[in-house]
Amino acid sequence: MYAARRARLRDRCSAAGDAAALVSRPANVRYLAGGTPPGAVLLLGPGPDGDMLYCPRPPADDDAGGRRIDEHLRLTVLSHTTGDPAIAAAGTFGSSAAGTLAVEEHHLTVARHRAIGSVAPRLRLTDLGGAVEQQRIVKDEEEIACLRIAAEIADQALGELLESILVGRTERHLALELERRLVDHGADGPAFPTAVATGPNSGRCGHHPSDRRVEEGDFLSVSLGADYRGYRCLIGRTFVIGTSPADWQIELYELVFAAQRAGREALVPSAGYREVDHATRHPLEAAGHGEGLAPRTGHGVGLEIDEDPQLAPAAMGKLDACVPVTVGPGVHLPGRGGVRIDDTLVVRPEADGGPELLTITTKELLAL
Amino acid sequence: MYAARRARLRDRCSAAGDAAALVSRPANVRYLAGGTPPGAVLLLGPGPDGDMLYCPRPPADDDAGGRRIDEHLRLTVLSHTTGDPAIAAAGTFGSSAAGTLAVEEHHLTVARHRAIGSVAPRLRLTDLGGAVEQQRIVKDEEEIACLRIAAEIADQALGELLESILVGRTERHLALELERRLVDHGADGPAFPTAVATGPNSGRCGHHPSDRRVEEGDFLSVSLGADYRGYRCLIGRTFVIGTSPADWQIELYELVFAAQRAGREALVPSAGYREVDHATRHPLEAAGHGEGLAPRTGHGVGLEIDEDPQLAPAAMGKLDACVPVTVGPGVHLPGRGGVRIDDTLVVRPEADGGPELLTITTKELLAL
Repeated sequence: MYAARRARLRDRCSAAGDAAALVSRPANVRYLAGGTPPGAVLLLGPGPDGDMLYCPRPPADDDAGGRRIDEHLRLTVLSHTTGDPAIAAAGTFGSSAAGTLAVEEHHLTVARHRAIGSVAPRLRLTDLGGAVEQQRIVKDEEEIACLRIAAEIADQALGELLESILVGRTERHLALELERRLVDHGADGPAFPTAVATGPNSGRCGHHPSDRRVEEGDFLSVSLGADYRGYRCLIGRTFVIGTSPADWQIELYELVFAAQRAGREALVPSAGYREVDHATRHPLEAAGHGEGLAPRTGHGVGLEIDEDPQLAPAAMGKLDACVPVTVGPGVHLPGRGGVRIDDTLVVRPEADGGPELLTITTKELLAL
Repeated sequence: MYAARRARLRDRCSAAGDAAALVSRPANVRYLAGGTPPGAVLLLGPGPDGDMLYCPRPPADDDAGGRRIDEHLRLTVLSHTTGDPAIAAAGTFGSSAAGTLAVEEHHLTVARHRAIGSVAPRLRLTDLGGAVEQQRIVKDEEEIACLRIAAEIADQALGELLESILVGRTERHLALELERRLVDHGADGPAFPTAVATGPNSGRCGHHPSDRRVEEGDFLSVSLGADYRGYRCLIGRTFVIGTSPADWQIELYELVFAAQRAGREALVPSAGYREVDHATRHPLEAAGHGEGLAPRTGHGVGLEIDEDPQLAPAAMGKLDACVPVTVGPGVHLPGRGGVRIDDTLVVRPEADGGPELLTITTKELLAL
């Protein structure tokens, strides 16, 4: 599997005239090599025999949730004193080869890039660009299986929280408890910092949990995800605390729910990224909430919690089958609070039943 | 305070012939500007009136643990569509000024650096290098006060753990419980992912907590820290589970303890970084444990949990008063386990009583 991924990238490099590539962005290295230690870089040689993983320390059982390094890869473990694996890799390759080496200019710093150039003066450095990120967009079934388990874990953690007493507890504590439950159910960790937002904070995108306590009548919005064997999902839900939601709460919830459903229904192969965004965004704009909306209404997930594609008004490109994305509109009314509803789904052809919903927690407006 | 820090950096830039500087590394931006939103960059103009903070979104109350942005700074909040604040800052500055702009080449990627060059073709980009990191090494008393509170919080969280039942619980659960307790006691969050290592894992540097359960006779090593208003400390301790430690455990513990004490005692103003490292490292090497030792035995802490200085064999430089550092040797015997003991201390002149120990949890070998 890893070898096949590397072969695809190698084809792309040869087509671009690059003799070799140095992959340094962590998620890209793991995609091509398996459960590598932090800081490892992959040198993709001109032929499969030249592929070499440079690690800053020996691999350990607990790297990347227990995922193994591809056994077909040759490994160089650097000693503490050798320093930067990217520079070591370029130095070794540059001493035995000439031509071009494609590097990830969107990941390497100027200082590292310069150091690579100076240890390998015979190499011409070119830009690999987002080639690996592009390749990562469409997932194979093994990747989707990991995402499915990650989503199941998040659903379980959230489900348990809903059964507990919430009034009087702080955002921070609820967030920590959710993270503990994720791990209880088998996550390698949270996929991203869990967001719990109450009352006037609810519906804010990426809210950092505070010491505010849950009160009767609050909206409570929660956004969490599990990391399972390196794959990360996302679920966002909004609830009401107390017995009956106020009219404005019902109205706002129904609006966001309708927008989110429209976005989910737009997830078909060959739909444009911007079309899906428009489907989600339009109902909110039509209701007068256009101003405060987030720049995008969804994005890809996988080895990173936020990866391509971007579902945004100016995004170029079209969905393929087997692309997992989030659909998560939100509206926040300053001073009052708001609603976010976010799912992770996999794009599937209509013949296969349409988009596969991974995060299945109910989207009814529950009063807790 | 922030203005004074910026004035020092400005002096350094003028001396190097740079008209202005663009600070992008997050901890450096916060050091010079206060509690900025993630992704903010600081443009340090030729005079104090030119200082401008470019934020990707409006500042929020919960940015950087509630720390405020310096009120003397002019703020530009970018709309969602404007994109990268660094490019926006360079574009604005470059359209009204010429000369040189110093940038952080160790932080900017090649792609961002190129984009900055192309929006500001009249500017010559130079390297600011680690100027801000160097300036951050010596802390003022307000910074040390934050570190002191962070250490107190970590001591409290650890102390409570010691009073609970440990046998049968997993490394993961203990780590999560410690993180919850940190927040309970007022931390904005953990300073870094809490490490709990038991039995054969104990003493491993940066161990990722696993599902292994605590057993009678285990060494249990714990490394944690609190983030308090952006400042991060570190404490590491090793305990024995059960009533009486084995002879090899007592022997190994005493060795690491002696090494750690030697390191602490070497913390005097004007001691070389490598001398402190040597004081800690030598007893372990002399006992035959040289091979597996970590590349450094301590490092600075502050707005980042791992910052300059580095206490390592090849480190250049000398300690000053008011520099907080960790002293944390460890020995890990493969298959058996090991010991780590780590403190955060502030270098103080002998006249002031010598190094100030921030993490005061006992370093006796407790049997839990």
